[in-house]
Amino acid sequence: MRRVILCVAALASSLTAFAGDQGRFWKQPLVDLTHALESTMPQYSEGHPFFLQKISDYDDGYLSYGFCIAEHVGTHVDAPRHFWRSGKSVDRITLEELTGRAVVINVVEESRRNSDYELTLDDLRSWEKRFGPIKRNSIVVLRTGWESKWYRPREFLNKDKSGTMHWPGFSCDVVDYLAHNRAVRALGTDTLSIDPGRSASFCAHKILLKTNKYAIEGLTNLEKLPPQGATIVVSPLKVAGGSGAPARVFALIP
Amino acid sequence: MRRVILCVAALASSLTAFAGDQGRFWKQPLVDLTHALESTMPQYSEGHPFFLQKISDYDDGYLSYGFCIAEHVGTHVDAPRHFWRSGKSVDRITLEELTGRAVVINVVEESRRNSDYELTLDDLRSWEKRFGPIKRNSIVVLRTGWESKWYRPREFLNKDKSGTMHWPGFSCDVVDYLAHNRAVRALGTDTLSIDPGRSASFCAHKILLKTNKYAIEGLTNLEKLPPQGATIVVSPLKVAGGSGAPARVFALIP
Repeated sequence: MRRVILCVAALASSLTAFAGDQGRFWKQPLVDLTHALESTMPQYSEGHPFFLQKISDYDDGYLSYGFCIAEHVGTHVDAPRHFWRSGKSVDRITLEELTGRAVVINVVEESRRNSDYELTLDDLRSWEKRFGPIKRNSIVVLRTGWESKWYRPREFLNKDKSGTMHWPGFSCDVVDYLAHNRAVRALGTDTLSIDPGRSASFCAHKILLKTNKYAIEGLTNLEKLPPQGATIVVSPLKVAGGSGAPARVFALIP
Repeated sequence: MRRVILCVAALASSLTAFAGDQGRFWKQPLVDLTHALESTMPQYSEGHPFFLQKISDYDDGYLSYGFCIAEHVGTHVDAPRHFWRSGKSVDRITLEELTGRAVVINVVEESRRNSDYELTLDDLRSWEKRFGPIKRNSIVVLRTGWESKWYRPREFLNKDKSGTMHWPGFSCDVVDYLAHNRAVRALGTDTLSIDPGRSASFCAHKILLKTNKYAIEGLTNLEKLPPQGATIVVSPLKVAGGSGAPARVFALIP
């Protein structure tokens, strides 16, 4: 109950700032959870390099660029359609669905010891024991610490000799539980997949997206989020029929 | 004062919805001001068609697409760098700057009669006489009605025989006034340029972007916004060094 009251107070004061003409709209601190789109980004699949191509320059009147990009690059959303023909495409995810309460589960230590770490039901139960049951419409984010490797793509992708990637992810059991018993809005992670890097079954994706929920991958600044109490706002590009899209994602910190 | 109180009430009840586990985060209605990205979109410059290219399909494990896009396509942001070498690139516009109070100026009738209509200082004074001085950190949106032509690109671009485009826009005087006397956050429009389509001087862009403010172009659903009281949240793709970027834009309606 105390948390709810604090939250009311925070929003009320944010409104004061807005009405008070102080040059700030949100009184709550905002945190950008989005990586900048750059040519050096690690990419899940090779063969689709990102780079800006100049279309016009100041001599022509103004500077402008164009770029080619795969849907699932940088900080991005996976829409249900990514794995399921009948699933919602990214432009059909509603604005309401694109906002949720942040639940952040820290597995940085576990991931440092084991780059194939999978979040277990026991981990989830420990979190719930400490912070209470995960509420409806939460966006459950796995913080693996992988974001610190973003500018070292080889280390981020962490391929073994056979080319298999290795990073931590959600286990199938956990995704099943969150999607069906906790009615989450979405799952997120700082790696490039909610499945562990080495997954060939993609069960986390399949189970989650089958329920018409979505994933947010390639998040950053997760260390700035409390375990709960923040709000995440997800803004994917509105690609008609898209299986996903690069997104801008930010959080309001209580 | 009455408006401020109403606004407090609206946000307080939005919070109730959030805390109350009713499956909605925002109690205020949300309106998506973003056009979907589609191959049929009207484009300011030709030669950069937008279309999805399939990268993988369900038989390969999952569906995914890639696409090429110019920065200034669809609903998008113009960063100061678009016209000024020393101006901020799109990734440097802060989250705080990307939110503002919506001020909507309706010139649908004027634009129907004259597709070269330019918003005048007199128009602005009339608006301010009726609704009060435009507040700091407003996002002033020109509603021309042009969005209804979005799916008829030829009509939208409205080129004359010489190839010059014709649509309504902000006059230089108005932009100068809003940027310097009203400390707005941004200007927006439902056409593809805050300058009138036939402009060769781009004075609206030059004056606005010189003050390190930004423009939002290609907006839609503007008829759902009240003249004031709504809040606009702008989420451009975080293109490193970009002169602008496609964006997701939505409004909270009081």
